Amino acid sequence: LTFPPVGRTDWIGAPDGLALLPGGSVTTPDGFVASGVACGLKESGNRDLGILASMRPAVSGLVLTINAIPAEAIVRAKTLDPGGLCAIVVNSGNANAATGAQGLADTNEMGQRAAAGLGMDPAAMLTASTGVIGRRFQMDVVRRGIDLAVAGMSADGGPHFAEAICTTDRAPKAGAFTLELSSGAVTIGVASKGAGMIRPTMATMLCFVSTDASLRAEDLQRATASATQGSFNRISVDGQMSPSDTLLVIANGQGSPILGDDLARFTRGLTAVCRWSAIQMVLDGEGAEHAVRLVVEGATTDTEADRVARAIGDSPLVKSAIYGRDANWGRISQAVGQALIGSEGPTEFSLSFDGRAADDADVGAVMALTEYDIAVTLGRGPGRSDLWVSDLTHAYVSLNADYTT
Amino acid sequence: LTFPPVGRTDWIGAPDGLALLPGGSVTTPDGFVASGVACGLKESGNRDLGILASMRPAVSGLVLTINAIPAEAIVRAKTLDPGGLCAIVVNSGNANAATGAQGLADTNEMGQRAAAGLGMDPAAMLTASTGVIGRRFQMDVVRRGIDLAVAGMSADGGPHFAEAICTTDRAPKAGAFTLELSSGAVTIGVASKGAGMIRPTMATMLCFVSTDASLRAEDLQRATASATQGSFNRISVDGQMSPSDTLLVIANGQGSPILGDDLARFTRGLTAVCRWSAIQMVLDGEGAEHAVRLVVEGATTDTEADRVARAIGDSPLVKSAIYGRDANWGRISQAVGQALIGSEGPTEFSLSFDGRAADDADVGAVMALTEYDIAVTLGRGPGRSDLWVSDLTHAYVSLNADYTT
Repeated sequence: LTFPPVGRTDWIGAPDGLALLPGGSVTTPDGFVASGVACGLKESGNRDLGILASMRPAVSGLVLTINAIPAEAIVRAKTLDPGGLCAIVVNSGNANAATGAQGLADTNEMGQRAAAGLGMDPAAMLTASTGVIGRRFQMDVVRRGIDLAVAGMSADGGPHFAEAICTTDRAPKAGAFTLELSSGAVTIGVASKGAGMIRPTMATMLCFVSTDASLRAEDLQRATASATQGSFNRISVDGQMSPSDTLLVIANGQGSPILGDDLARFTRGLTAVCRWSAIQMVLDGEGAEHAVRLVVEGATTDTEADRVARAIGDSPLVKSAIYGRDANWGRISQAVGQALIGSEGPTEFSLSFDGRAADDADVGAVMALTEYDIAVTLGRGPGRSDLWVSDLTHAYVSLNADYTT
Repeated sequence: LTFPPVGRTDWIGAPDGLALLPGGSVTTPDGFVASGVACGLKESGNRDLGILASMRPAVSGLVLTINAIPAEAIVRAKTLDPGGLCAIVVNSGNANAATGAQGLADTNEMGQRAAAGLGMDPAAMLTASTGVIGRRFQMDVVRRGIDLAVAGMSADGGPHFAEAICTTDRAPKAGAFTLELSSGAVTIGVASKGAGMIRPTMATMLCFVSTDASLRAEDLQRATASATQGSFNRISVDGQMSPSDTLLVIANGQGSPILGDDLARFTRGLTAVCRWSAIQMVLDGEGAEHAVRLVVEGATTDTEADRVARAIGDSPLVKSAIYGRDANWGRISQAVGQALIGSEGPTEFSLSFDGRAADDADVGAVMALTEYDIAVTLGRGPGRSDLWVSDLTHAYVSLNADYTT
């Protein structure tokens, strides 16, 4: 079982030459091995610890949460060379966040043990953890999990790795793509998790990308940052920013680094892969039944358009109306007015649901779709923003009223 | 039926000499008449149009929403002398918002017709509307309602007026208080509505206060603004700011205006009355089962404390945990970290539930209370903020998924 693909392929912004490889994963690109095991961190008995590693020297791009109380793995990650990472060890079921000095020692031990098991430099091994905040690791369980995962590393391990990083996700979100470059085709694999505590800059999420492309570390870092802006920073499930957000891209190609037009094309391809993953997170948002693209046009600036889109997308009234398939545009105008506090209100305000007016007879059919657009036009300038958001459902409340108890 | 009083009377901050008058309403102060009628704006057949008026010359204090797309009644209100209002005509069932020039003409007609019926200057008659946004008034229904309400004005009409302004409120929120001043006792009556689209500056709400105190208009305006800061700007149900928020205080005392210490005491009394109303709105928040006071201390500044409190109070994850009676403090630390983005994280972070730690055996009993405190201490300065918030429940989602359909 993996998460169904995004139906609205026009949302992805894929460049020519990018193609999904059916059944692909993070171990589809050449030279990557992975594993995912169940060691007992999750009460369910599901897989809860995974390792992904390049078998060859690699470079990396890394983006981390900007939450001011980061998880301990983020504290550790900030001490590492972001361009020199070849592997990641990650667990679910416990975020190892707000656990202080002991938690930092635990995540260091986690990285060291995984690196030692694979014969690697610990400074090339990133750590990540996702799950409940504020609980100490059971380190005996973690140690056993790492040893199991190290022993199980294989070139077929990508799907198990994708399972091991999930928490409240309905299904793993994983895939692989080929991308044609003038210098030849490269392969990009991706595994991501994220369902709640999701909001832009960054969404609460883990996303690990493997590729056999050859890049200079500084180019990969720029491409990773650019891809984040066009994908994970453009989604919101619940407006909440996690202390654990991590995007790691590992590139292990050994030929001449791609440059110029190929580098630009790789960046567009990486952005499309990340957007594909980001929209999957929205579709798999906790309790979500709909993924809606909010398209705000005609704002004074892109920044203002973004503020308007987020005010709409994070409004529990709008999100409940999307759930209820209710074209309640008054709540959208209310959110727009709240976003524009301190400025003159817009002289023009129009909106549509996949091109249909709120009072159109067919708007109910649009709102029954899993994926659709809500477009808002303000008519006061060239500013534009796209934001993908989920709806607020009874299942969201159930999940989050009962999550730790 | 009226809404039950606030149990945590220590939350009110009442000055000495303020006492609740059982069964009181906006017509309890001398010289006020009111009515509330059912004219057909609500499908339920409940009362949906009301008028409150002073029978004597009066002065007023007025605070309006800062939403940049205000309702048409707010557009009209901004053209009036805020100190010269003696009466209000208000309807529920239709917000007359985002209705443009026709909506503005409709609210003007509403004010003129009510004023003519009472033999008053239309410039002294405020209008207000609450309900669904984006629908034109049925003016024939409104006209009939105004005529009925004018015909029914009486000194016993306060309770009917309080009913007529409700939308999704579970019950009217109304009362009256006496306040001892050195110059003698004054009476303050209040009727308020608000259950959803509630957030500080201002909450989505209507609140109408009548008093037989004698004040200068400029002093009453200052007292009204100060009372708003200490009450309606300190609550949040869903973080959404309405385009219709209105607080009107009418004072019709005919003696010497109160000044000096009495004015300060009146301001404290008015603030306490408004806070009483504000906390009732939180208790009556859409679907709410809990009203929680978030007390943030030890922030760098009061402004930072306020930002932290709002990040916690508007987090759907925290709000769901309050509903689920789950002392999930990791979600609180996550929200704090999100609020403090761009600054150093706090070196100290502790929290308690009515004084009990999150892992205290009795914390479940605290979280079963309708009203309790969550205190967060950051240890980085003298900044402090109080914010009253409701929880996020299945009933909230049900109400807002189905509200207009």
